[in-house]
Amino acid sequence: MPPPSGSPAPERRLAVLLSHFRPCCEAPRATTRLASVERHGTAAEAEAGLAASPCAAAGSGEGESSGGGYCVFCNIAAGAAPAFKLYEDDVCLCILDAKPLTTGHSLIIPKSHYPSLQTTPPTVLAAICSKLPLLGAAIMKATQCDAFNVLINNGEKAGQVIFHTHVHIIPRSKDDNLWSSETYSRSPISHDQETKNLVSSIKEVLSSSPEDYSAATSSTPKGF
Amino acid sequence: MPPPSGSPAPERRLAVLLSHFRPCCEAPRATTRLASVERHGTAAEAEAGLAASPCAAAGSGEGESSGGGYCVFCNIAAGAAPAFKLYEDDVCLCILDAKPLTTGHSLIIPKSHYPSLQTTPPTVLAAICSKLPLLGAAIMKATQCDAFNVLINNGEKAGQVIFHTHVHIIPRSKDDNLWSSETYSRSPISHDQETKNLVSSIKEVLSSSPEDYSAATSSTPKGF
Repeated sequence: MPPPSGSPAPERRLAVLLSHFRPCCEAPRATTRLASVERHGTAAEAEAGLAASPCAAAGSGEGESSGGGYCVFCNIAAGAAPAFKLYEDDVCLCILDAKPLTTGHSLIIPKSHYPSLQTTPPTVLAAICSKLPLLGAAIMKATQCDAFNVLINNGEKAGQVIFHTHVHIIPRSKDDNLWSSETYSRSPISHDQETKNLVSSIKEVLSSSPEDYSAATSSTPKGF
Repeated sequence: MPPPSGSPAPERRLAVLLSHFRPCCEAPRATTRLASVERHGTAAEAEAGLAASPCAAAGSGEGESSGGGYCVFCNIAAGAAPAFKLYEDDVCLCILDAKPLTTGHSLIIPKSHYPSLQTTPPTVLAAICSKLPLLGAAIMKATQCDAFNVLINNGEKAGQVIFHTHVHIIPRSKDDNLWSSETYSRSPISHDQETKNLVSSIKEVLSSSPEDYSAATSSTPKGF
């Protein structure tokens, strides 16, 4: 499979991949060189020549407003910004990423504006993620590959730049050169008091949030 | 937040992170050094001292058999292998990753055996992913962080090693040192015939798979 036109040189792909995991809070020099997978907004904005405008979801009664700031995904959903659209239904869109890591790199985006996974209704996430087999299989077939990564960057420190929930589908092939260094062994989790405390802490938070269960799905949580 | 006991040295974390994206098909020397996030099976197997056994899902009428081979996630779901369990319902489990990248690194696993996203029913994926807000928020609160990555490695070339669908939740913090190098700009997608052909090809595959839509969710696909 040939690389997409305009794709980065192979030796840069590792660095590009790392941009998924780069925080926003960094030194100015590094910031000016950063162009992560999240920079769809900048690219689309430049392509469309759009000025800042209120979020398309504002006042619609669905989702949240982006606070009056420009949200490229809201604009794409509203048809006010360009994108290569692959799929659309009542809940979501699937488009090509404006700066693809590999050929076919795509994004699934809810039509309504939710800035984080925590603020995205479980039913919306369910609808989006239920499309992964369909969309992933179609993208793999069209790009003649047999593997892909699904990635969500949630929060600045996880590399999120556009604060409108979105799911990356990144097709993979043997020769895509998304890495270049050797890997090392890492240690198994310790079976010590620290780990037990962590488990207890997470369970305690979960048990204090019973109202979330009913909204999630019809599956019934077990005692834990 | 202190690093977990037994966590890799900071300078190794970048390499460990890259193991998410490393294919299995590699030179023997590299293979013997690989210990990716997918190595849960090896760790749990070693911890439990379990011999190979048929997949727990085999013959249950749910999901697929793992072909008679050992599947650590089926064994964990059946209670036959150890794990730090955080959450459980009728459809899925959430457990701590046996070789965490960061404190609180967890996995959501369907109880039934599906070797890939393509073979995982949309309803199961919907149920699993609808738990992301609940579980992600609980893990963030317990680990005192405010960001996490969601990652699925689907297929060998995407770094999948355990062929039982699972979703990683990887808590992130500013000082987690999961990266160490600068990033570079990458090129916007080309608005050329090659990209248009790619879009047409993906849409064509999607339009020839109408039977998948009804199984996905109740949302209605638009003409595309």
